[in-house]
Amino acid sequence: MEMTAFKLVDVTDAEVDALEARYGPLAEAVRGLVDATIRSRTGDDVVGPAIAAIEEITARLREDQIDGPAGVNYNASGRAWNWGNAAIGLRNGAAPPMEVVHGADGSMTADVDLGAAYEGPPSCVHGGVSALLLDHLMGVTASQMGRVTVTGTLTLVYRNPLPLGRVRLVGRIAREEGRKVFVEATITGGAGVALEAEGIFIIPKWSGDFESVVQNDAGPS
Amino acid sequence: MEMTAFKLVDVTDAEVDALEARYGPLAEAVRGLVDATIRSRTGDDVVGPAIAAIEEITARLREDQIDGPAGVNYNASGRAWNWGNAAIGLRNGAAPPMEVVHGADGSMTADVDLGAAYEGPPSCVHGGVSALLLDHLMGVTASQMGRVTVTGTLTLVYRNPLPLGRVRLVGRIAREEGRKVFVEATITGGAGVALEAEGIFIIPKWSGDFESVVQNDAGPS
Repeated sequence: MEMTAFKLVDVTDAEVDALEARYGPLAEAVRGLVDATIRSRTGDDVVGPAIAAIEEITARLREDQIDGPAGVNYNASGRAWNWGNAAIGLRNGAAPPMEVVHGADGSMTADVDLGAAYEGPPSCVHGGVSALLLDHLMGVTASQMGRVTVTGTLTLVYRNPLPLGRVRLVGRIAREEGRKVFVEATITGGAGVALEAEGIFIIPKWSGDFESVVQNDAGPS
Repeated sequence: MEMTAFKLVDVTDAEVDALEARYGPLAEAVRGLVDATIRSRTGDDVVGPAIAAIEEITARLREDQIDGPAGVNYNASGRAWNWGNAAIGLRNGAAPPMEVVHGADGSMTADVDLGAAYEGPPSCVHGGVSALLLDHLMGVTASQMGRVTVTGTLTLVYRNPLPLGRVRLVGRIAREEGRKVFVEATITGGAGVALEAEGIFIIPKWSGDFESVVQNDAGPS
């Protein structure tokens, strides 16, 4: 099965900025609501009207909406954006979101604040959320220099529980062999290293068409 | 570092049912809002008031809320719930949520509908979301017979892109050695198997206190 292609969109960088300024704060408000929905102790007198109000807002937002998911878009200047992405989507109220910082030495780092919506064991980050964030960071690490990669194999070793709160992810390329990029990464928080990960990322054969136009950190993962 | 303990709460099953009936629909409404936030094309005239309204709802829900995350709670009858869980949390608008079905042969299955909030590559499930769901399902698979397990090592082999939509996860115990439980799982959708996973789950030494009281599918992961 082929994945749907990246989409070239005829908008300027300034127009993308304007859209991000409009919808980014909306997603941020939704993140607050997600947290409150988990933690609220209010009664039916508050929750009932809240549901009705949320459904009304949703209906208004849906009066003009795209048919499917957001996809990965890029414009003629080479800017790319993936607003719905589960790890970093600017418009995704379910994403933390993670922001990846590119190091001068090729390493990638992300500091992420994980609250009540990312819980697994009591007061700790869900092991699968750690996997989600690591997979994404490692994909970005592999996708340096404008190339596209997809996850091949991911091995995660869980060393310690990871408390909710601020966590740090760091990834780097260990080596490359042909179309395979070997990436190592860790996630740290609380008392130290919680997870160690190794991944093999594949440069797909169809990637050549996009290598020159897609920015690093918007690549799929 | 020790994870915070599971918490025994003095509420009846009927009271838990009533709370789930109150807050479950709230989280479901939030899931719709998350989706609309990604896909809306409406202008500032709609988005501005939407942000204000969401912030007002959030403030009302926060007028009475617990201090931190939801945790994993259980009552005297042995029922357990983890409403904030990132994979299956009933009150978590960021969770799909996944519902795990226990097979008579010890296998575990989950059919999950993944929409725009779970995207990675265009129109496909984020590889990290697949990892999140597999980690959880495999943890539940390992935690059968009332015991608690934590993830030790997880190896994920990505075979094919996984289109957004309905996906199926299946897990089973391959073998056990002392405190180690070896679990195999797959995630299937679109044209066939997208991921194959192997996991080693550990029965922690502190788990004995909970083995008799915590239901299978609310265990941490």
